[in-house]
Amino acid sequence: MSPKRRRVSPARPRPLTHVDDAGRARMVDVGAKPVTARRAVAEGEIRMSRAAFALVKANKVAKGDVLRVAELAGIAAAKRTAELIPLCHPLALDQVTVTAALAARLPGVRVRAEARISAKTGVEMEALTACAVALLTVYDMVKGADRAMTIGKVRLVEKSGGRSGRFARR
Amino acid sequence: MSPKRRRVSPARPRPLTHVDDAGRARMVDVGAKPVTARRAVAEGEIRMSRAAFALVKANKVAKGDVLRVAELAGIAAAKRTAELIPLCHPLALDQVTVTAALAARLPGVRVRAEARISAKTGVEMEALTACAVALLTVYDMVKGADRAMTIGKVRLVEKSGGRSGRFARR
Amino acid sequence: MSPKRRRVSPARPRPLTHVDDAGRARMVDVGAKPVTARRAVAEGEIRMSRAAFALVKANKVAKGDVLRVAELAGIAAAKRTAELIPLCHPLALDQVTVTAALAARLPGVRVRAEARISAKTGVEMEALTACAVALLTVYDMVKGADRAMTIGKVRLVEKSGGRSGRFARR
Amino acid sequence: MSPKRRRVSPARPRPLTHVDDAGRARMVDVGAKPVTARRAVAEGEIRMSRAAFALVKANKVAKGDVLRVAELAGIAAAKRTAELIPLCHPLALDQVTVTAALAARLPGVRVRAEARISAKTGVEMEALTACAVALLTVYDMVKGADRAMTIGKVRLVEKSGGRSGRFARR
Amino acid sequence: MSPKRRRVSPARPRPLTHVDDAGRARMVDVGAKPVTARRAVAEGEIRMSRAAFALVKANKVAKGDVLRVAELAGIAAAKRTAELIPLCHPLALDQVTVTAALAARLPGVRVRAEARISAKTGVEMEALTACAVALLTVYDMVKGADRAMTIGKVRLVEKSGGRSGRFARR
Amino acid sequence: MSPKRRRVSPARPRPLTHVDDAGRARMVDVGAKPVTARRAVAEGEIRMSRAAFALVKANKVAKGDVLRVAELAGIAAAKRTAELIPLCHPLALDQVTVTAALAARLPGVRVRAEARISAKTGVEMEALTACAVALLTVYDMVKGADRAMTIGKVRLVEKSGGRSGRFARR
Repeated sequence: MSPKRRRVSPARPRPLTHVDDAGRARMVDVGAKPVTARRAVAEGEIRMSRAAFALVKANKVAKGDVLRVAELAGIAAAKRTAELIPLCHPLALDQVTVTAALAARLPGVRVRAEARISAKTGVEMEALTACAVALLTVYDMVKGADRAMTIGKVRLVEKSGGRSGRFARR
Repeated sequence: MSPKRRRVSPARPRPLTHVDDAGRARMVDVGAKPVTARRAVAEGEIRMSRAAFALVKANKVAKGDVLRVAELAGIAAAKRTAELIPLCHPLALDQVTVTAALAARLPGVRVRAEARISAKTGVEMEALTACAVALLTVYDMVKGADRAMTIGKVRLVEKSGGRSGRFARR
Repeated sequence: MSPKRRRVSPARPRPLTHVDDAGRARMVDVGAKPVTARRAVAEGEIRMSRAAFALVKANKVAKGDVLRVAELAGIAAAKRTAELIPLCHPLALDQVTVTAALAARLPGVRVRAEARISAKTGVEMEALTACAVALLTVYDMVKGADRAMTIGKVRLVEKSGGRSGRFARR
Repeated sequence: MSPKRRRVSPARPRPLTHVDDAGRARMVDVGAKPVTARRAVAEGEIRMSRAAFALVKANKVAKGDVLRVAELAGIAAAKRTAELIPLCHPLALDQVTVTAALAARLPGVRVRAEARISAKTGVEMEALTACAVALLTVYDMVKGADRAMTIGKVRLVEKSGGRSGRFARR
Repeated sequence: MSPKRRRVSPARPRPLTHVDDAGRARMVDVGAKPVTARRAVAEGEIRMSRAAFALVKANKVAKGDVLRVAELAGIAAAKRTAELIPLCHPLALDQVTVTAALAARLPGVRVRAEARISAKTGVEMEALTACAVALLTVYDMVKGADRAMTIGKVRLVEKSGGRSGRFARR
Repeated sequence: MSPKRRRVSPARPRPLTHVDDAGRARMVDVGAKPVTARRAVAEGEIRMSRAAFALVKANKVAKGDVLRVAELAGIAAAKRTAELIPLCHPLALDQVTVTAALAARLPGVRVRAEARISAKTGVEMEALTACAVALLTVYDMVKGADRAMTIGKVRLVEKSGGRSGRFARR
């Protein structure tokens, strides 16, 4: 994760894929797309006070529950992405991995989520949703110690498979 | 929303409320808490390329669907917070309001969510979840134009009701 | 159920309660409403071919499963109304009753659903949703015999409790 | 949509596919069926008072929210059909399209839903469920102006793919 | 938990509360019941091979994930009881506690779940559902080592609040 | 179902498949597994007092609702297994069959559930979850007559398809 992020803007913007010619929201028709192996990785972070960070760190030494609960919440959320994001396709994921780790420099917690599938459409939203919900779970468990925590830098870091090719945030 | 945020750290950190003495994750017992009117407001943003922003703006002029779909997704997510966040209490919300607005300065979209209830426990997580899912929905609908969008600054801005008193991010 | 229905149009139409002054969809804020005992009854029907009706009737004589499955589906759907209808409030229902009965005159099946609660807001949507899903379930179980079945006359027949007073379709 | 509908009754009624020889409800085993491209279209309508219709029409001119919210609710419901209809198979839809349009002649709103998939079983129930939930959503948003609205004519209008061949309501 | 369990059979059996006079399944109407503090405790166990038990025990020493994942799954399931059990009332639980512990004598895992609420109806089903799903989760995580594990002795051990008074299994 | 069950312990225990090298819970990656026809059968039972059994039996003679409601609850639960069991893969089941039958010798009810799919991973959890939820449903409907009922012997009895080969409990 480099601190400076560079945009990967398309030279010629395509119209919004999820809006039809009449301006109406729609699911993209993936019927004609080939089934390919797809993978997406997303990351995000939550910043907190030093005092709150110390509590999470102490908890980790004991049993590690805050981070583990957040990881499980992320996995569960990935499986329910199509229920949360209105125009997402329901997908039978092959795998979801969520890792929540202490980041003393923030201070706070960094989450990384990876989703994999063989399907007609990609799994960016599954990886991003897993990330966001894992971070919200950290907030929930630590909010008694710090209500001013901020969730940020939730973004796609890598994606492969599908027509749009490979994407990697540098 | 001031760019500089000040931490509201407690002078003496209380232990993590969602972890018991044996280090095990738990729901907080709210049985003995009084029912009071509670309210929470959360905000967040998604930054995107100028080209993507132009598409969302053009869409808004036509029918406004990206922002409206995001708002509805946020409302629906608020109602399902207890399914997503493992240790959250199920709550029968009195109201949820979600507003998604273009922010040319980012460029991108800012989301503000407010939740209200009369209950034994607060609705911060409902407001934050609505915010996060509304922003993920913008990502989903605009990702065809920019995969490098970043969701950030998701945080509680105001909270009232309950024993911990009023919280306001300055 | 009289075949001719009379409209109960308000003399002066109020603006749409679920749309705010800016034209944005919203949940109604029920925070200030009193908790009262509320009840709503909805009805609907599905018409089918004589051959399909004969199959449902024969099934009923044996074990009655089509009608019983439809009733259970209606009860389950009533409990999930707030997940289906975007601006509905989540409610902890006191009771739902769904009755599916053969109606030789259609021929087909008539469904009646009643929902009860003590709450700040009414349960019309719960009764109507129970009705609609029970009828869809009949369609699903009988569609192998008749794909041309039609669901109709799904409507509120009675409502009590709440500020808007009693409603009864004559 | 012709006002007079003709039944497409099978010459020899097959037994109910969703009831086994002992009269017990069951899911149909689709394990041996081939995967084919399938499509289903359903329609339905909601009739309302002139006053209520005027409000919906005025809202559409402003931002069109009632119709757009209904469309999104229909899409979301299609994705959850297997949770609502007890014996439906869970399916990973390729696409759902829902269109809600003003119909001055009713007066009211007409909804059309189309579902597509490559699977072992059809998507009639997904199209019908989308239709029914979109119509219920219109009811919810407009009920403050007219509680006597009626949902009707919810039916399959077209279906292709699968062993039972093409179905088209004339 | 005594190995010998004694039945607490009522002297005069009441009719089934969840079946109406016509033999139709129904939700019990709790509208007239008073809101009281209610509590229910359930227990259950899963027996496994010594080899599988050794793996779970080794895992617990490391990070304790099998038992912790099971506890979280139980909490989440308790919150969704009304979606799983057709005639259960939706309830806003005050608290759920789930404890999964190694039991060398089985060998296997014992789960204890406690649910609390102030409501018109009890939380036995919530406690039992939490127990059952926690045990199923152990099965899922350990099945690669032993497919012959057996879940058993899932039962209510204590209940208080409500008209039927206190229940305690001796 | 023989009363004496013999363990099928692996000669050399493999490590827990759902825990990674760092001791963290994970979903198994099924991306590289072949799609094969898979089938799993699970069984379980609920024991009750003679008085409660007499009520269920009488109900069965009338309309059979307790057993039928339990079967439907089992089918619905099978479809939602991945929402309940944290590390389960979402699967589009080909079929689920659940049979609940009176067992005078217990006295009580025996449930048998069978799940089928063509997929990369098996359906043991779907069969076991269907079983457990069907038994919980019997408990719910009969608990007014006997709160001391016990659910037990929930276990896999047969499994075929997939790399681990055929499993049959003798």
